[in-house]
Amino acid sequence: MRTSQYLLSTLKETPADAEVISHQLMLRAGMVRKLASGLYTWLPSGLRVLRKVEAVVREEMNRAGGVEVLMPVVQPADLWEESGRWEDYGPELCRIQDRHSRPFVLGPTHEEVVTELVRKEVSSYKQLPLNLYQIQTKFRDEIRPRFGIMRGREFTMKDAYSFHLNQECLEKTYQNMFEAYCRIFKRLGLDFRPVIADTGSIGGSASHEFHVLAESGEDDIAFSDRSDYAANIEMAEAICTQESANTPTEAMTEFDTPNAQTIADLAEQFSIAASSSIKTLIVKADEDSEHNFVALLVRGDHELNEIKAEKLDGVAAPLQFASDEEIKAEIGATPGSLGPVNLNMPIVSDRSVAVMSDFCAGANVDGKHLKGINWERDLPLPHVADIRNVQAGDPSPCGQGKLDIKRGIEVGHIFQLGDKYSQAMSAGVLGETGKHQIMTMGCYGIGVSRVVAAAIEQNNDERGIVWPEALAPFQVVLIPMNMHKSHRVAETAEKLYEDLTAVGIEVLFDDRKERPGVMFKDMELIGVPHTIVIGERGLDNQVVEYKNRKDGEKVEVAIDAMVSHIQAALTV
Amino acid sequence: MRTSQYLLSTLKETPADAEVISHQLMLRAGMVRKLASGLYTWLPSGLRVLRKVEAVVREEMNRAGGVEVLMPVVQPADLWEESGRWEDYGPELCRIQDRHSRPFVLGPTHEEVVTELVRKEVSSYKQLPLNLYQIQTKFRDEIRPRFGIMRGREFTMKDAYSFHLNQECLEKTYQNMFEAYCRIFKRLGLDFRPVIADTGSIGGSASHEFHVLAESGEDDIAFSDRSDYAANIEMAEAICTQESANTPTEAMTEFDTPNAQTIADLAEQFSIAASSSIKTLIVKADEDSEHNFVALLVRGDHELNEIKAEKLDGVAAPLQFASDEEIKAEIGATPGSLGPVNLNMPIVSDRSVAVMSDFCAGANVDGKHLKGINWERDLPLPHVADIRNVQAGDPSPCGQGKLDIKRGIEVGHIFQLGDKYSQAMSAGVLGETGKHQIMTMGCYGIGVSRVVAAAIEQNNDERGIVWPEALAPFQVVLIPMNMHKSHRVAETAEKLYEDLTAVGIEVLFDDRKERPGVMFKDMELIGVPHTIVIGERGLDNQVVEYKNRKDGEKVEVAIDAMVSHIQAALTV
Repeated sequence: MRTSQYLLSTLKETPADAEVISHQLMLRAGMVRKLASGLYTWLPSGLRVLRKVEAVVREEMNRAGGVEVLMPVVQPADLWEESGRWEDYGPELCRIQDRHSRPFVLGPTHEEVVTELVRKEVSSYKQLPLNLYQIQTKFRDEIRPRFGIMRGREFTMKDAYSFHLNQECLEKTYQNMFEAYCRIFKRLGLDFRPVIADTGSIGGSASHEFHVLAESGEDDIAFSDRSDYAANIEMAEAICTQESANTPTEAMTEFDTPNAQTIADLAEQFSIAASSSIKTLIVKADEDSEHNFVALLVRGDHELNEIKAEKLDGVAAPLQFASDEEIKAEIGATPGSLGPVNLNMPIVSDRSVAVMSDFCAGANVDGKHLKGINWERDLPLPHVADIRNVQAGDPSPCGQGKLDIKRGIEVGHIFQLGDKYSQAMSAGVLGETGKHQIMTMGCYGIGVSRVVAAAIEQNNDERGIVWPEALAPFQVVLIPMNMHKSHRVAETAEKLYEDLTAVGIEVLFDDRKERPGVMFKDMELIGVPHTIVIGERGLDNQVVEYKNRKDGEKVEVAIDAMVSHIQAALTV
Repeated sequence: MRTSQYLLSTLKETPADAEVISHQLMLRAGMVRKLASGLYTWLPSGLRVLRKVEAVVREEMNRAGGVEVLMPVVQPADLWEESGRWEDYGPELCRIQDRHSRPFVLGPTHEEVVTELVRKEVSSYKQLPLNLYQIQTKFRDEIRPRFGIMRGREFTMKDAYSFHLNQECLEKTYQNMFEAYCRIFKRLGLDFRPVIADTGSIGGSASHEFHVLAESGEDDIAFSDRSDYAANIEMAEAICTQESANTPTEAMTEFDTPNAQTIADLAEQFSIAASSSIKTLIVKADEDSEHNFVALLVRGDHELNEIKAEKLDGVAAPLQFASDEEIKAEIGATPGSLGPVNLNMPIVSDRSVAVMSDFCAGANVDGKHLKGINWERDLPLPHVADIRNVQAGDPSPCGQGKLDIKRGIEVGHIFQLGDKYSQAMSAGVLGETGKHQIMTMGCYGIGVSRVVAAAIEQNNDERGIVWPEALAPFQVVLIPMNMHKSHRVAETAEKLYEDLTAVGIEVLFDDRKERPGVMFKDMELIGVPHTIVIGERGLDNQVVEYKNRKDGEKVEVAIDAMVSHIQAALTV
């Protein structure tokens, strides 16, 4: 491709409204342009990258036995009524009407449509398992689209749906997809982790997220420094290695703490370590409970994990914290002075709290705390559960190594759905014994367009994008210096362009009438892995310069040897 | 691909609501399934064909200098207000609101979005010409979606938009696109014609449609039997080779025609040839005219061309015929007795009417006609224009040969748009002299999904689809007879499957436990060009059967020679 016939559209300045580096670089490198909030046009370079992601995803899905279909963007509302999501799905579901005032939706996902298809087309267990996928345009009406295509409203997704006679068969395909996803992200050259994930509102029994590791990620991932274990922090189990509390050494005493509202205040004013204090958090009880509230205890240096907490029996889901007024009315004290002693409500203690001794907590009287508290002696040990977030340095729940915590960008998600949709929509087949059986389903998504942004978050430097080879919009950029003045430079550039494209190498030939400095800057911004620079001076010795975008390595190469030099340098 | 892992979904019966053959066969062969009116899911075989069309379109667009982008489906309404189409575009434009009640549309086409992009990204004549295209999902809310994907609501389209400094440059790209379109449809193996077309509501100065010839086509195309000339019947010029009327031989006389309301009645009751009669059609005059109506005269054996008629000065557009009541009130006679003599309104005569002599027409008195009418002698010659449809056998307007008329399916359309959108949206660049200049535009569409249906309309027989090689979902189908009973058959089939796929041939391996008859029927329905049948009997002699779907040719081929036999048979 010649830049003169291309839409290069690089920007010198960073657009003011682009917060994250991938958004900034995608705008500056001319990969996308905003049409409206959360709606982006893919410019030629961006689209080339998107297509490369698609191609790898397609190849690996096919290899793993997936069969590609294409379902409509616009879906009839009645299917969503049948699944129950017409009610349950929030305003991210864009509901529209056609010219006859019939209700439709813009598909944010396709469980309903694919279940409708399969219940009509598949009637016997002999046709199972079946794994249908598509690479297609989705629309989710995000309340606050941001970070460019990272959280846009219209985006490209690979969504796959598998159908099975039983859980065992589902688990086989699930494992198959797990491995396919690992191959995909590996081939794309990304540093990623599959992590154990929460199944959330989509339902189902098991789930993994695939995260590209990057500082700007929205999710915290905990992983072992000695094994493959990795989990979304929401899901990582906090292990307590201490088996029981130490023997008490102090008496329980009340003391005045008029100016201490927080764990930090106690540490500062009374030299009480955060790890010797307890945080007492009051949340609403489940509707069926005889109590209104539940108290949750975590160590002063730990954080409550809300996902774990809302799964506790007797606790309302989603988790709702009691207001200051409600706490005052129920306990007679304000949040800064709460504690488990003489607290008249169900109490759940984190595992690490249950092994504390001689600890400190609020006295349930404003301005007063208790210290030297000990379980069993001063109060009964409450119900114990894992309700805290893991921290870096915690032992890994897999039993090997310690946990490290990094930020990740979710680019894939696989679910064992079970029969949530097949049951609601009566999708069954005749089983081996001739009995009608509801199918078991899995679903497997990859945010194809988000992968592009995530790859940039992970691969950039102060000069621009540094594409992994598999994703680069071009493999080679050809920069002839002052070719419009030098016939020799022009001739050599044209010849190299021809020779490289002839062997199937994707070349961007910068044939603009621009100063070399402008060309270098643009091409480094776009981040093509291999650069060839052609200048008058080298031509005297029949050499041109090769430059590697990633390590900055520069070498002079004989013109005749350049094609094989590039071929040797290509890793994909 | 093994059928056991595939979604074959063939149907024995023709679905009742499928009217045209392509719709019937696409359903029966398991290519698409209806989700809702005008909304179809592409099943695996259908999608494979769709992707082949896409690939050829993409290759030829790239070769012709097109640069691929991807614009959103959802478009902000304000751009449509700017172009004026928010008002002008009918209910086919699906207007939606997002969660914040902001108005958007589902893009039926992308002139507005691409013009918005280019006016922001392109500032200098040096960046022109630019030809941007995409292959993307469109939505048009057809009032009566029909014929399956032939006239669906959601469909895949290749739309290209070119930007130029002047008309001359536009014409060059237009010609370039014309040639690219010819290459595309030729490579797809289709019998097609580029035809001169009406620019219609999209505006612009020149336009060609590309039609796949098929009896079920919705359009009539006139083309010369001696040259490349072809035009949509709406646009084909009707030539009159007779220079002037013959000398009158009869006197004008009135006669009673109480039971003659039509040209056919006159012929039957009075032996007056249709070619000696005149049809007088009354249409509404343009608002600016001092008259309310205009009379249009065509020969009794000709048909009015409404597109030509509505372009006449003084005639209302779109064309509106006067009602019987309006005609009675204005002329005092009913439609069956109208004629040009003593008619007090502007009259436009077709060219062929202007050279008639001794002709017959209504007397503008119910139950009476006049015969022996002659121009100049009995009434002045009115304004003469080409207002009729051409007929088979008419001289071609190109001057060579006669016209033939066939039906066609429009699969492509190219337009010289001029400045309709760039003017309305102020899309300009700095010209060579430093002056700001509005750009000139072209646009070029291909109905990618419709091509699939059109190809089937043109290529089928009583057993099913007969795919052109370039479009077939698979190149070869492998039918092992009773492989589940014969180890030899299974082994040979597996080996051939492996060998064929190893050299890149796309094979559908029918490994179902089905009777051979069922397999043959399904595979002929799907229409794969080359079939290999493996049976016990042949294996005794180390041969298998090759069968050609198109000509039914069958030959026995040595197992070892089959891969090269297939390679030789492939034309793509």
